[in-house]
Amino acid sequence: MNERAKPRNRPDNAKADELVFVALGGLGEIGMNTYLYGFGPKRSRSWLMVDLGITFPSESEPGADVVLPDLRYIVSERKNLAGLVLTHAHEDHIGAVLDLWPSLGCPIFATPFTAGMLKIKAIEAGRSALPIREIPIGGRFEAGAFDVEMVSLTHSIPEPNGLAIRTPAGLVFHTGDWKFDATPVVGKPHDVEKLKALGEEGVLAIIGDSTNAMREGRSASEEDVARSLAKIIADAPRCVAVTLFASNVARVVSIAEATQRAGRTLVVAGRALHRIIEVAIETGYLPRSFAHVDQQRFQDFSRNKVVVLSTGSQGEPRAAVARIADESHPDISLDKGDLVIFSSRTIPGNEKAVSRVQNKLARLGVDLITDADALVHVTGHPRRDELKDMYAWLRPRIAVPMHGEARHLREHAKLAREAGAAKTFTMIDGEVLKLWPDPATVVDEAPVGRFYRDGNLIVPEVEGPVKARRKLSFVGIAVVSLSLSRRGEILAEPGVVLEGIPAQDCDGDSMHERVLDAIDGTFRSIPQKRRGDIAMIQEAVQKTVRATINEAWGKKPVVKVLVSVLETRS
Amino acid sequence: MNERAKPRNRPDNAKADELVFVALGGLGEIGMNTYLYGFGPKRSRSWLMVDLGITFPSESEPGADVVLPDLRYIVSERKNLAGLVLTHAHEDHIGAVLDLWPSLGCPIFATPFTAGMLKIKAIEAGRSALPIREIPIGGRFEAGAFDVEMVSLTHSIPEPNGLAIRTPAGLVFHTGDWKFDATPVVGKPHDVEKLKALGEEGVLAIIGDSTNAMREGRSASEEDVARSLAKIIADAPRCVAVTLFASNVARVVSIAEATQRAGRTLVVAGRALHRIIEVAIETGYLPRSFAHVDQQRFQDFSRNKVVVLSTGSQGEPRAAVARIADESHPDISLDKGDLVIFSSRTIPGNEKAVSRVQNKLARLGVDLITDADALVHVTGHPRRDELKDMYAWLRPRIAVPMHGEARHLREHAKLAREAGAAKTFTMIDGEVLKLWPDPATVVDEAPVGRFYRDGNLIVPEVEGPVKARRKLSFVGIAVVSLSLSRRGEILAEPGVVLEGIPAQDCDGDSMHERVLDAIDGTFRSIPQKRRGDIAMIQEAVQKTVRATINEAWGKKPVVKVLVSVLETRS
Repeated sequence: MNERAKPRNRPDNAKADELVFVALGGLGEIGMNTYLYGFGPKRSRSWLMVDLGITFPSESEPGADVVLPDLRYIVSERKNLAGLVLTHAHEDHIGAVLDLWPSLGCPIFATPFTAGMLKIKAIEAGRSALPIREIPIGGRFEAGAFDVEMVSLTHSIPEPNGLAIRTPAGLVFHTGDWKFDATPVVGKPHDVEKLKALGEEGVLAIIGDSTNAMREGRSASEEDVARSLAKIIADAPRCVAVTLFASNVARVVSIAEATQRAGRTLVVAGRALHRIIEVAIETGYLPRSFAHVDQQRFQDFSRNKVVVLSTGSQGEPRAAVARIADESHPDISLDKGDLVIFSSRTIPGNEKAVSRVQNKLARLGVDLITDADALVHVTGHPRRDELKDMYAWLRPRIAVPMHGEARHLREHAKLAREAGAAKTFTMIDGEVLKLWPDPATVVDEAPVGRFYRDGNLIVPEVEGPVKARRKLSFVGIAVVSLSLSRRGEILAEPGVVLEGIPAQDCDGDSMHERVLDAIDGTFRSIPQKRRGDIAMIQEAVQKTVRATINEAWGKKPVVKVLVSVLETRS
Repeated sequence: MNERAKPRNRPDNAKADELVFVALGGLGEIGMNTYLYGFGPKRSRSWLMVDLGITFPSESEPGADVVLPDLRYIVSERKNLAGLVLTHAHEDHIGAVLDLWPSLGCPIFATPFTAGMLKIKAIEAGRSALPIREIPIGGRFEAGAFDVEMVSLTHSIPEPNGLAIRTPAGLVFHTGDWKFDATPVVGKPHDVEKLKALGEEGVLAIIGDSTNAMREGRSASEEDVARSLAKIIADAPRCVAVTLFASNVARVVSIAEATQRAGRTLVVAGRALHRIIEVAIETGYLPRSFAHVDQQRFQDFSRNKVVVLSTGSQGEPRAAVARIADESHPDISLDKGDLVIFSSRTIPGNEKAVSRVQNKLARLGVDLITDADALVHVTGHPRRDELKDMYAWLRPRIAVPMHGEARHLREHAKLAREAGAAKTFTMIDGEVLKLWPDPATVVDEAPVGRFYRDGNLIVPEVEGPVKARRKLSFVGIAVVSLSLSRRGEILAEPGVVLEGIPAQDCDGDSMHERVLDAIDGTFRSIPQKRRGDIAMIQEAVQKTVRATINEAWGKKPVVKVLVSVLETRS
């Protein structure tokens, strides 16, 4: 590993211009998409950051709200960071901006919808305004050594942009998240002519979305989903609730239209949906006919005259649909014969949470439709035939799969080679890839890692509180307090806290008593003349407490010993 | 709830015979299958327990190894418990026997393979022998008021038995886990004639498996999987490893045969596989030609001359395939061009763990085949057409879906009604269903709940250490020790342990210092004359520490204050 971390450049190259690419997040697992392009000689490169996303903590990261990328590689070069371009407004692409932008201080480039989402989030969080430069759809701007053109693609949110990044070394196409959808319900279809023109211009490299690289065929269109939802809503005899990813404005529009056509009223439940509707109205993505009422008005309508639009498709326990399932929602209740549509897919890791909500709804007698039952959701990422089209149109020399787990990156690379890419790189976060000049190769390794938003604070992964809590979650903690004289006499009964440790052993004897007995025994075993060595006593008590609990329980807790040494006048 | 918990029987029924069914686990979520049948008057019923399983803890149950059912309902009646019948040897049906049988003390009835599995587990755990009465395949025995006949079905383990439970009230068919497989590779096909004969005899109720009640059609046969695996193994250019549920003896046989036909040697890696092979040999389920070598011999063969059979299909981090993926397995290593087959499905909740292992293998350049790519696994549970056959043959008056989440139970009940069942009951654990005499209805509620195996100990869910650790995993813990005189003077600097709490606030100031300052401030705010109230001081310090940390962090940790009151001579 150390070997690898060393630069492989020879010293005489240090002053030559290079074009490099590095991911600080986004390769190896979905989320935390944070990419960097650098141009110039090694010691004075101009940098462009693309996206700055979060991911959600795994079960081994308890109590953390979100996971943020470690930016130290670029923070140390922030004076050369020309800007941060945001491809689209999904949390795994913009979610870390509020927390981490202060350490960068660079301009932020985004199209209107993405800019609007970021602004509303800053306002809600009480942050001061960010220096966002709004780029029109299809617009082009310069940042440092980079000439960046926004290329309209399609995805599950308005304004997904591929980036045509022109540099003195050639053109790199950074896809962002994309699919090809000729009928995306809102926004423009993907810009085929522009993509073909880029191919004509010549593309050095594609850095591209790998999410569905293992799935054959083409993704269905958002309009297909709209039709399917409209039919289900039209046929429903009673109340219908639809839960979805809030940011899917096209889906919101489809459901609103189906609601109107069915002579029903749209009831919106959940803050994230209200936020997106506000931004979508401001940026012109909702039709003039769009109408909705707030959740408080649910009871004003007959059950068969409403469609509820609800957050919580991932089983989030405090979101609207989970509270409806728990029968704890203040305004909305569902029962036998009502219908809930999960117009979403379950993100890996959320399966149990989603199934908990669905089972609670089933117990209420509510009918369920998920994407396993009907076309009520469609992916926002390209399947293999779409990838093949992209490669056919752009004809890049180099392909770097991003946005996927290792399996997806590997399949994407294979497909890219079959599609004619001369070189492909299946990389991991932190590898610095020299795209130009030839030969393209990994030349360096950037430090990467995870930070957590933990309560109000940003804390490190390494030696941080999240890891400590993970340990506590397995083995609990014992804290002992000792009041000792300078000569190591015990001046009061030791205090013991056992937290997360069984209260009794297998014979039903008190664990607390066992620990006190063990401390007592340890003290008696220490000869009088050695009692003055407080550190030794502390360590001996720690060991004995750990061993005693381990003997009874089979697990070694965290053990801390607090010693107060008191002056005595005897 | 209290209302519901009261018996609904009128007092004059208390002496009449009844047949009741209750699940102490197995309804509402997969796992922990533990069912009871009772016959007789309410106060002196004869009881029969069917299965005694575990389930695996969720992410909200940290550090627990397994989850066990709360048996207090039947323990209080153990003198009337005639026996425990085990339908088959899966952990979710027998996994709690070793830990919980001592509280029951009843005879255990099982067919030879199930008995063999239980015995080997008892030996490995150093437990004394259990009173197992081995019942031959298709055998019949009496236990209390119950006449039980073992009916051969098919599943993903040898000897899955449906139970024809004859009582004075009629015949109940308890399916256990089942499917219809005419070519199950090992063991007999399901006993169609017997099922039809039971239908002729007359069936009061089916208590039946709901796992696949939402899936149309019929499950494929184990022989289809065998053929598919044989082809993949025959065509593989280099090393092949297959990971599977260890207990799937038929799959082991299929893979062993494919290995031999391909002129390769079978290498077995993982203790669970060695255990199952031992029992399968003893009970005659492995063909005479079965041959394998231990994992230590992997290096003795060319890579293209072995097939590795490996544990770990659920992503278990210490199982063989995870260690191979980590490159930390002592004997076996895989690399570019080797093939790993996941001959399994991923149990909900294990998706991330499985995908972690698969991604590590992909990074090694290993090719992967899962059940999404080829027919390398088949379910052991009945799909809808199999359920329909079962209902057509047995024609029960009552259907009680079991072994499934609420959604599955609901779909199964719907299917049973369509198939002619006069009454169906979608129940939850603990509901006591009177099956006879008419009208069948829920008459009582048994206490149910969860216990955990936590280290060496069995601990309760309620007010137990697992829940305490879950809390620690979110908020951490602060422990303060105070040495005070009787008059409430501080005699030494307070001791502070902060565990799982950020070390610094947002300004980079030490949390430890902030806590000490807050304690100091609290002391100074308490008037001299009130200092003698030690409990008040303890509470004031606890509150101030919690508030101080919450102010800096936005989370309220567990706070404990240990006070030592010392005699002073001043």
